[in-house]
Amino acid sequence: MKTLLLSKTDVQNAVSMDDVIAAVEEAYKAYQQGQVEQPPIQGMEIPEHNAESDVKSCYNHANHMFSIKTVGLFKDNIKGPGKFAAADGGKLPNMMGNVILGDGETGGTLAIMDASLITGIRTGAAGAISSKYMARKDARVAAVFGAGAQARMQIYALAKVRDLTEVRFYDKFGTPELMAAYKADVERETGAKAVECASVEEAAKGADILICPTPSREAYLKKEWVKPGTHIVEVGVDGAGKQEMDPAIFAMASKVVCDSIAQCLSRGETRNAIAAGCLKEEDIYGEIGELVLGTKVGRENDEEITIFDTTGMGIQDNTTAEAIYKVALEKGMGSWFEFI
Amino acid sequence: MKTLLLSKTDVQNAVSMDDVIAAVEEAYKAYQQGQVEQPPIQGMEIPEHNAESDVKSCYNHANHMFSIKTVGLFKDNIKGPGKFAAADGGKLPNMMGNVILGDGETGGTLAIMDASLITGIRTGAAGAISSKYMARKDARVAAVFGAGAQARMQIYALAKVRDLTEVRFYDKFGTPELMAAYKADVERETGAKAVECASVEEAAKGADILICPTPSREAYLKKEWVKPGTHIVEVGVDGAGKQEMDPAIFAMASKVVCDSIAQCLSRGETRNAIAAGCLKEEDIYGEIGELVLGTKVGRENDEEITIFDTTGMGIQDNTTAEAIYKVALEKGMGSWFEFI
Repeated sequence: MKTLLLSKTDVQNAVSMDDVIAAVEEAYKAYQQGQVEQPPIQGMEIPEHNAESDVKSCYNHANHMFSIKTVGLFKDNIKGPGKFAAADGGKLPNMMGNVILGDGETGGTLAIMDASLITGIRTGAAGAISSKYMARKDARVAAVFGAGAQARMQIYALAKVRDLTEVRFYDKFGTPELMAAYKADVERETGAKAVECASVEEAAKGADILICPTPSREAYLKKEWVKPGTHIVEVGVDGAGKQEMDPAIFAMASKVVCDSIAQCLSRGETRNAIAAGCLKEEDIYGEIGELVLGTKVGRENDEEITIFDTTGMGIQDNTTAEAIYKVALEKGMGSWFEFI
Repeated sequence: MKTLLLSKTDVQNAVSMDDVIAAVEEAYKAYQQGQVEQPPIQGMEIPEHNAESDVKSCYNHANHMFSIKTVGLFKDNIKGPGKFAAADGGKLPNMMGNVILGDGETGGTLAIMDASLITGIRTGAAGAISSKYMARKDARVAAVFGAGAQARMQIYALAKVRDLTEVRFYDKFGTPELMAAYKADVERETGAKAVECASVEEAAKGADILICPTPSREAYLKKEWVKPGTHIVEVGVDGAGKQEMDPAIFAMASKVVCDSIAQCLSRGETRNAIAAGCLKEEDIYGEIGELVLGTKVGRENDEEITIFDTTGMGIQDNTTAEAIYKVALEKGMGSWFEFI
């Protein structure tokens, strides 16, 4: 049987952010309805190369497909030309991996695709879905901490669900070139004005939506800077030792929503908040799939402070890869290889 | 960068059983020397299609490569033509999957290969390695329970380390055609005489090496049929509920060796023996890597009954895939695809 192979460029051309938002909503619904078999994440540390790699797998009873995504963070790739060049002759990105999409009936490998972009897009979509249900309808000003790939994806996705007028950004490690590139990209993609800030405080104060997408190991977002009515997207913390938010913000929030409560309790910012005594497990409001299905309401008034904590789930890759595969098939994209 | 794609046929042509035995010995050494990062196996059940799928991953500090193997058992594939045909136009095998081999320095995907054959070969090699260190030097008669793919691989590999004269086989589900095919295959590959038996007892009694490679859920090998000096390869039990051996045989054995003690305690026949009170954890003799490294001795006399319990480790796939990749590169096999 033939397997469809899709490059990063194919993936980019196959789906729009709107398609991925729809796919991730399907993912959250399937998860909530008990349609998803999702074993614990496999993590591998590669300290001698300043890298780490994760494997997220799942079987989705809703589409009868299984997916295995291996994605690693290889931080040294951005430093130099390295031993391999990207297809365009440039450096490899620091996020590297593949998704295998398989047919649950025969075990046949339907498609293998580059995963460097999928993870970024589906994570951006996750943040936007939370804002769709939890941010104020009139939210106009977003602040994002970081100016890298995920800080772009979060804003590109958010602009699909809210009419942004201003995007404030701050990056501790941002060079003038990187900051200028971020500003230009965001303004081109969203039409909002992008404003470089000199500190987390300057970016955060007065913003309607706060996005934390960094691999930080200390809480940089202070509770003093969070006004009533704010929605916070917590996406960077995905393992022990990582932290972005002052845990006291959880005590101020009326609704804390997780993608998977179990996973956020073991790997997310929720874990830090509970450890600090600022949140009790029974006070977590629910899972995002409940908001998507409508079995729980999202924001109820303009004063609530709301938090969405996401550590990422295999099912997001599953439905996103399915959407990419179907469009690629329809449009005749990619190459074919017969493994068996 | 370019990724090498290898079909089942490429895999078959790239390496011999001797190569794989050498690769799996390297795997056991690396594991024993603490060179291997191997997260727990991910398992997915697909009951609506009578299937199950596992993901075994590891990073090997010895070769600086990571591997992710997804392999599932799709039992219905052998029943009919199914919705996909194999490359030769025939039915898909019931074991289906791929191995991704990655570069630990850059995260680049070096190769993706069919895994249906790799799992069988490296598991056959594992059994043979145990016999190399644990079976009597003059062992001539092997008995294998089953006449399927793994019952072949175990014997093909065993014939590389012992001078077999007779291979007895019994398969509860064997049709005359399947039994005749097994006999012909084994005689052609090994030169030993293959003898179809009418029962487990007939096959087992008096044999020097006993091989249990079935997915049985009840103990079919009785202690009365195991003579002094026997080596037993226990390869079929890889999860709760499965059982092949009368646990009392463990009480008769002077040496019980595991591939990974931790994994066999949670998924192997060792688990059943301990649950039945026939073995204590502290009485497990060691891990196979200790015998390969020579830090523990194997068989010490012709009277010992020895047991090797293997549930299979990601590191076996890692070093086997590395060997295949290197030969394929050298010989110019396979196709290339640029994912990124």
